[in-house]
Amino acid sequence: MNNEITASQLNTEKFISENVNKIRTAVGEGIAINALSGGVDSSVVTMLGHRALGENLRTVFIENGLMRDGEPVRVAGLFRKLGVTVEIIDARKDFLTALEGITDPEEKREAVTQSFYKNVFGKIVRDSGAKYLLQGTILTDVDETVAGIKRQHNVFEQLGIDPQEAFGYRILEPLIQLRKDGVRKVGSALGLPPELFERIPFPGPALAARIIGEVTEERLHTIRKATVIVENALKETGAFQYMAILHKDRVTGMIDGRREFGQQIELRCWDSLDARTATPTKLSFEVLRGLANEIIKQVPGIVSVTYNIAPKPPSTIEAV
Amino acid sequence: MNNEITASQLNTEKFISENVNKIRTAVGEGIAINALSGGVDSSVVTMLGHRALGENLRTVFIENGLMRDGEPVRVAGLFRKLGVTVEIIDARKDFLTALEGITDPEEKREAVTQSFYKNVFGKIVRDSGAKYLLQGTILTDVDETVAGIKRQHNVFEQLGIDPQEAFGYRILEPLIQLRKDGVRKVGSALGLPPELFERIPFPGPALAARIIGEVTEERLHTIRKATVIVENALKETGAFQYMAILHKDRVTGMIDGRREFGQQIELRCWDSLDARTATPTKLSFEVLRGLANEIIKQVPGIVSVTYNIAPKPPSTIEAV
Repeated sequence: MNNEITASQLNTEKFISENVNKIRTAVGEGIAINALSGGVDSSVVTMLGHRALGENLRTVFIENGLMRDGEPVRVAGLFRKLGVTVEIIDARKDFLTALEGITDPEEKREAVTQSFYKNVFGKIVRDSGAKYLLQGTILTDVDETVAGIKRQHNVFEQLGIDPQEAFGYRILEPLIQLRKDGVRKVGSALGLPPELFERIPFPGPALAARIIGEVTEERLHTIRKATVIVENALKETGAFQYMAILHKDRVTGMIDGRREFGQQIELRCWDSLDARTATPTKLSFEVLRGLANEIIKQVPGIVSVTYNIAPKPPSTIEAV
Repeated sequence: MNNEITASQLNTEKFISENVNKIRTAVGEGIAINALSGGVDSSVVTMLGHRALGENLRTVFIENGLMRDGEPVRVAGLFRKLGVTVEIIDARKDFLTALEGITDPEEKREAVTQSFYKNVFGKIVRDSGAKYLLQGTILTDVDETVAGIKRQHNVFEQLGIDPQEAFGYRILEPLIQLRKDGVRKVGSALGLPPELFERIPFPGPALAARIIGEVTEERLHTIRKATVIVENALKETGAFQYMAILHKDRVTGMIDGRREFGQQIELRCWDSLDARTATPTKLSFEVLRGLANEIIKQVPGIVSVTYNIAPKPPSTIEAV
């Protein structure tokens, strides 16, 4: 069933009608549920599920408080225009509480994943009465986890659902034969707007991955503001990825003529084909200075801005 | 007595012979002592004192373990060529012990100052039997401390010498009427080699000011290596000042294919006239990339390098 369909082999109309039928047949008169993140994969699954089930698909968008400025409303708005109702679940407190006191990057990622599956989305699934879960898994995800056979079992475990006890839960993964380029083709054929495909990749733990040290509401506010500035300034560069990172180290600065230990923002902008290796984009000095000045002016507490000049490896794309 | 002598008014031959006589008259058959740091002011005072007193001036160079690579030997070698014996005092342990566990920048500076005056140089002065202390104070230092009248009293206090009890101690400050440009002219006339004037300014707490967080032997080793690379690469730029800063924040990196939380070096290179305001030097991308690669290759544990792009203010020249 996981036989690859390459983007060039792909007949989007046929793919869509086959998968709409499969979903319809599987779910029947029941209810299905899915979590929309605003990424390409979950967006395409949402549209496929909506075509198949209409109001019987419940699509939730989990606002974890770690997203880009205005992201939940932006994504829900795009889908409203396509006739799809997206329910925004405010789970900011759950995530912030889970992240409290955590500074280790791996623990941070784990806290975000756990909060998402077990505490928030798991509860919604269990309470919803839905027995069908739509997921945007693509072939590359399967390759990466290797343990492809155990994947569905893992999802139940992550959701806090014991498949023995809660007999009858089913995971539907309509994109499992595609890779990213194929998913994009299906998305276009489903009428998804280009905005959904144009945004640069964003890591799973979202802005929590852009903060060195503890994630707090105040620090999220700081990095969110800087992220807006960087993404606006660099979106025309065509770079592979760009980001602002809030450091924990304090550096000396001058605010209103007084010495003050302020915060530092690091900027990264990467040229890359496949994220496996990457080099810093050769941005002009004027762009860099302009960015530094805007961040200093707009983001409270920032006294210093740096630009990454090291390649990957030994650096990585993200800092956390 | 503190009437300013501007560089253009200055007659170096007259200045030198007058001050040599003054020092000779004051010290007589006694012994004088001075601490040489390798900076312009203390170098000029060393030469003046040597002319006046010969072997009756004891010049010590305190190796605090916080200096540039090879600095004590380099400075002592330059003076040996001029016929001046410089005694290198190994006080690395005193300074490292004093800095142990300190992360606050102000406390760090204080620990270095205290170690220098009270524990190390103070002890040397007290043990030496010298009652005359030659100091390279210049007019700008007096302006900056404002409390000019109390200055000499402060020096005794810093040295742990009670002027009441230890009657007879005298501070001699032959450069007190000059500013930096005048001092340089006197230095040239005294035959000091250009190397002593060419090096960029270095802060009082030396490499301790280039380390965010605790100063340890290992971290000093790291920043010392990076400093050699940066100073070699940027000495031809004509920039006002340039430096490497070791961050405390850990960032994700890849070493031999494994994820590893490594260290980051920040580079700063400043254009400035008077250090009051400064802007990052527009270094070419090739220079920046070359620097990053060399630091990554040569300095163990470094996975990331950034370049400062924020101006002063709100940044400051140094980070600590």
